[in-house]
Amino acid sequence: MCGIFGIYGHDEASNIAYLGLHALQHRGQESAGIVTAEGSKLHRQVAMGLVSEGFGKDNLAALPGRAAIGHVRYSTAGSSELRNAQPFLFEYAHGGLAIAHNGNLVNAAEIRTRLERAGSIFQTSSDTEVIVHLLAQQREPELLDRLAAALRQVTGAYSLLILAEGKLIAVRDPHGFRPLVMGRLRDSYVFASETSCFDLIEAEFIREIEPGEVVVADRVAVRSHRPFAPAPPRFCVFEHVYFARPDSQLNGQSVYRARERMGRQLAIEHPPGPGGADVVVAVPDSGVPAAMGYSKQSGIPLEMGLLRSHYVGRTFIEPQDSIRHFGVRLKLSPVRSVVDGKRLVVIDDSLVRGTT
Amino acid sequence: MCGIFGIYGHDEASNIAYLGLHALQHRGQESAGIVTAEGSKLHRQVAMGLVSEGFGKDNLAALPGRAAIGHVRYSTAGSSELRNAQPFLFEYAHGGLAIAHNGNLVNAAEIRTRLERAGSIFQTSSDTEVIVHLLAQQREPELLDRLAAALRQVTGAYSLLILAEGKLIAVRDPHGFRPLVMGRLRDSYVFASETSCFDLIEAEFIREIEPGEVVVADRVAVRSHRPFAPAPPRFCVFEHVYFARPDSQLNGQSVYRARERMGRQLAIEHPPGPGGADVVVAVPDSGVPAAMGYSKQSGIPLEMGLLRSHYVGRTFIEPQDSIRHFGVRLKLSPVRSVVDGKRLVVIDDSLVRGTT
Amino acid sequence: MCGIFGIYGHDEASNIAYLGLHALQHRGQESAGIVTAEGSKLHRQVAMGLVSEGFGKDNLAALPGRAAIGHVRYSTAGSSELRNAQPFLFEYAHGGLAIAHNGNLVNAAEIRTRLERAGSIFQTSSDTEVIVHLLAQQREPELLDRLAAALRQVTGAYSLLILAEGKLIAVRDPHGFRPLVMGRLRDSYVFASETSCFDLIEAEFIREIEPGEVVVADRVAVRSHRPFAPAPPRFCVFEHVYFARPDSQLNGQSVYRARERMGRQLAIEHPPGPGGADVVVAVPDSGVPAAMGYSKQSGIPLEMGLLRSHYVGRTFIEPQDSIRHFGVRLKLSPVRSVVDGKRLVVIDDSLVRGTT
Amino acid sequence: MCGIFGIYGHDEASNIAYLGLHALQHRGQESAGIVTAEGSKLHRQVAMGLVSEGFGKDNLAALPGRAAIGHVRYSTAGSSELRNAQPFLFEYAHGGLAIAHNGNLVNAAEIRTRLERAGSIFQTSSDTEVIVHLLAQQREPELLDRLAAALRQVTGAYSLLILAEGKLIAVRDPHGFRPLVMGRLRDSYVFASETSCFDLIEAEFIREIEPGEVVVADRVAVRSHRPFAPAPPRFCVFEHVYFARPDSQLNGQSVYRARERMGRQLAIEHPPGPGGADVVVAVPDSGVPAAMGYSKQSGIPLEMGLLRSHYVGRTFIEPQDSIRHFGVRLKLSPVRSVVDGKRLVVIDDSLVRGTT
Repeated sequence: MCGIFGIYGHDEASNIAYLGLHALQHRGQESAGIVTAEGSKLHRQVAMGLVSEGFGKDNLAALPGRAAIGHVRYSTAGSSELRNAQPFLFEYAHGGLAIAHNGNLVNAAEIRTRLERAGSIFQTSSDTEVIVHLLAQQREPELLDRLAAALRQVTGAYSLLILAEGKLIAVRDPHGFRPLVMGRLRDSYVFASETSCFDLIEAEFIREIEPGEVVVADRVAVRSHRPFAPAPPRFCVFEHVYFARPDSQLNGQSVYRARERMGRQLAIEHPPGPGGADVVVAVPDSGVPAAMGYSKQSGIPLEMGLLRSHYVGRTFIEPQDSIRHFGVRLKLSPVRSVVDGKRLVVIDDSLVRGTT
Repeated sequence: MCGIFGIYGHDEASNIAYLGLHALQHRGQESAGIVTAEGSKLHRQVAMGLVSEGFGKDNLAALPGRAAIGHVRYSTAGSSELRNAQPFLFEYAHGGLAIAHNGNLVNAAEIRTRLERAGSIFQTSSDTEVIVHLLAQQREPELLDRLAAALRQVTGAYSLLILAEGKLIAVRDPHGFRPLVMGRLRDSYVFASETSCFDLIEAEFIREIEPGEVVVADRVAVRSHRPFAPAPPRFCVFEHVYFARPDSQLNGQSVYRARERMGRQLAIEHPPGPGGADVVVAVPDSGVPAAMGYSKQSGIPLEMGLLRSHYVGRTFIEPQDSIRHFGVRLKLSPVRSVVDGKRLVVIDDSLVRGTT
Repeated sequence: MCGIFGIYGHDEASNIAYLGLHALQHRGQESAGIVTAEGSKLHRQVAMGLVSEGFGKDNLAALPGRAAIGHVRYSTAGSSELRNAQPFLFEYAHGGLAIAHNGNLVNAAEIRTRLERAGSIFQTSSDTEVIVHLLAQQREPELLDRLAAALRQVTGAYSLLILAEGKLIAVRDPHGFRPLVMGRLRDSYVFASETSCFDLIEAEFIREIEPGEVVVADRVAVRSHRPFAPAPPRFCVFEHVYFARPDSQLNGQSVYRARERMGRQLAIEHPPGPGGADVVVAVPDSGVPAAMGYSKQSGIPLEMGLLRSHYVGRTFIEPQDSIRHFGVRLKLSPVRSVVDGKRLVVIDDSLVRGTT
Repeated sequence: MCGIFGIYGHDEASNIAYLGLHALQHRGQESAGIVTAEGSKLHRQVAMGLVSEGFGKDNLAALPGRAAIGHVRYSTAGSSELRNAQPFLFEYAHGGLAIAHNGNLVNAAEIRTRLERAGSIFQTSSDTEVIVHLLAQQREPELLDRLAAALRQVTGAYSLLILAEGKLIAVRDPHGFRPLVMGRLRDSYVFASETSCFDLIEAEFIREIEPGEVVVADRVAVRSHRPFAPAPPRFCVFEHVYFARPDSQLNGQSVYRARERMGRQLAIEHPPGPGGADVVVAVPDSGVPAAMGYSKQSGIPLEMGLLRSHYVGRTFIEPQDSIRHFGVRLKLSPVRSVVDGKRLVVIDDSLVRGTT
């Protein structure tokens, strides 16, 4: 999971990218980055941590230009270091090229070995770089043709935003594993992992980029291309369950309503046991929509039995005689007047380690 | 509004104070501080901003001792500077004295002028310092007597925690304007503005400090004193409306239930107009309990129509062609699938500037 | 040893103070501070470490006003903490007062105990604060009279610069232990521990402040006062030996020439032994003037046998299997082509621990 | 100008590299970096600024291994950014390779264009990277053969230190433009731009690496190779004039003595004019050896007429009504008692802009 954002044709491209990434922050908190294009010149700023921590007036001022792409990273492949922070910026025979990638390639290691044997030198441990090296070796005169030829060699999930040769290119892989949507902000075009960021920047949602589609924005127009063979759709179920924000529309559905329906379905498949239940309690904030659905379906009242702290920092000093489940206790507090002596149905969006 | 915390007789006093302040963070985010007592020696660490930002292993390690008091500050009187961060630590004829104060004195300026004319030099612009100067000028041999003599000269709101001469002293003014509660953590005693912090540190709530009560913890015992003339109770209504955390018990009442009842009352006094309403929406998180009360009383379903961002940093770059109500939009996002085309009842805990 | 600087009547008072302190940096590297007066309002900025580290555009911009005093601290009395960084700024019955002090008082502890017993609360562990408390307790209507009454109670070394009530006051104690000089920069007056800083700011040296003299600069004029009984002069010999910069004039003498004469005298009192010597080598930079004097007097040629590194930082990682005399080796390197096989006379300004 | 340092076979390789770089700091202050080899694994730390600023316990602890190479950079080719800080570390088909380079290649741009057209992607704007890409494309099984084949394609100045495949390789170009020396520290071998750093780490100077020589240190032995055709020697004259430290031996000569002889020669070629001169004054510190030579040759006495400040930071606030030659005045102060009214011969190591 990562978040990507792009804008083409706006005087404040880097500022808008910054706001767009802020609204996609839930998709990745490890690093944040923005590349802008000022004519053919590309400018890059990346930082570890949150967008609001890593970006301020100084580095935004170092990002002139009317087109921008940005990335918030959640570590999957590649280690947690600044050099793996995206967007990547490469200089190659055709000038500069910046790329932001959400997804994972399954044949990246194999391609990398082949390229290195032929003399290629890689700069990161990210599978995204494989795409760029493949691109650098194509001979077609047109960027779009070189890109398609390169992408036909990789398999896996990729929603991409690319800045090069004065163009912004948005690509969604043929299976459509990861989301990618398109909107309009006055005269400019915006691209993002989710629609949730459009409200903040006052952009209008146009449509989703379709699986296998390549959209190219340049000075003349925005054009759609379909350079790949069709493939069966494989939209990742975790986007609706967990990754996306409830105020996004994905794959034609409201994430909030999808979660609420899952809560209703849960109430049908798993009603309270024979003794019944007094209260439905959500694990805030992600469990709330499903808890509302469960409550409506079952008729059991919903109460705010758990509080989420707004002040959880990253490094906490834990007492030596360790308090049980300290991390969770710091984040969530029970409201005793709601839960004491009650039979509870507790709803979260998913169950991973079970600590919560 | 500020938050204060104290602990007497614990090997990890500074760590526990740090956790206690974290759970009181909602009462003040401007500065945080802890003073510990190691025998008669007092150690002080203060920082601007949140507890989790200002405190780490290094400054907690610089706070040895088995007694501690702490403070989170919300600026009311005195400007926002590090030198106004509490607890204050003073050296005077009887050695060191640390003090943490929640409340405002109404005759502080008048007393200060009188003291300065006699040669006193103040170190801060805080009204709390007046108490210390008055204390320094008393001649009684016992600290408790000097303190009572000093406090009888001030009028206004004060819940105090004081470390001096190997004692921890908790004071609540005769009117009981501000809360102050007492609990037990194994063999140690804890004092705090709210009960909400007791869950995190696994302390047991004993009782509220009563208006006009002075509790002194030392090596021998914990004793209660009543050096002031009785006064009518004047507990601040904003504690239940706005300041306190919903999981606290204050003045014998659950804050959560109090807010829910206010929501019910609101539904009775202000039902939807003649056209009716489709959905009750809370402004998260503080408006949720009242919205639940309103929904239950009115029968109008509650939905999560507003999302609150977890990633709002303090300094945000605003686009030049200013987006309307930018600050609020950054913090709160509408869930269109809930609110579009609906008649809404929107509930917040209070209405101050009306921006939200 | 500390360095003090003051300027009265200049549009860039804080910038000039910053430069003046830079040129006095050799007198103290522990902390640096500047207070400016903007009408009756005083502004203060202090920082640990060097002037060039602690001061930049931001804190200089926070120092408006046409009068300034500054201080560089070398720890003697009082521990090494930011709260002991001078100039001190106090608010008392007559408004704000800032003070910068070079010297040590011998009866400070005794006075402090007396004052604390009467209810005074001290803010620092510095002996300078005693002067301010004494001042706060005087009843005379004129500041100069209160100051004289206060200073008559202290004994010891004090060169002072004070900003209060729109005046800049320069005081040198009756014995004249520490230096204090006065100059002119266009229409403004400057005061400093040494003349060395006048060249940098293009000020003209007027004269030394005399022992027991109090000079007051205000909007009307610069006036000299003599409120103390005469006392025998006791100028500190270490100023010429070690503290002051060679390009300063102190007590009517060039520091450079004084050191050169000491080198000549050393050659007379301690000529090389019977075997003679081949080369005179100075420990740079402080030993150079005396080495030149020794070389001239003895006829033995001077060579640069030791290099001083310009890059010695404050924290160095020392190898585990400790290199002998590591600290000195880092700072000073022998020039083998000069010293190998030679009989050396090595000259330093003084011999304290003998490590060098 | 840059400085390079390497060590092979020492338990504290990174600490020794740190000290070695410190003693080479005069050769470059823009960035500093160290790469260590722990078996086949390479670790890299780089920082902008001085060695003592950028390196501390934390990043030295992140540099395990018994071999290290380091670099201090003085910007010549390539812009001033962290990504141009050396040593560079690349991953390629044969694993990791680190390289530190002192010198400039004259055909780098031409080779880079050729490589990029064939699909290579460069990571830096440094000419050093060309060497690595050429190396990555060679097919010989032995690293030394691939390296020689790559270096035969470049022309210009290069003293190199390379860590790869468990070996440390030192290379000096066929013309010997830049210095490179070799020493022994107990059982380990050290390599450096200058001998000056050997004193600090207590290493023994063995000999200079000769022009066109490649020295390979591995677990078995240290071996010398000569893979290049002989070329006429072209040692850079500025090493003796300006770059190197006076306590170094370069090209068989003491730098100190070389500068002193230049001063003597200057006195012969440019004696004082008809009016004579009273004093020889050096611009400290670099002008001192030549000034001593001039003084000895001419018989005119040397005096310390200029002081150099030890406290010049990098960012200084300049007064608005600009003081003339402010930068120089901050660094150098005249000693009036030496220079006032005298006819001076002022000696510096070189005359570039003439500001001093």
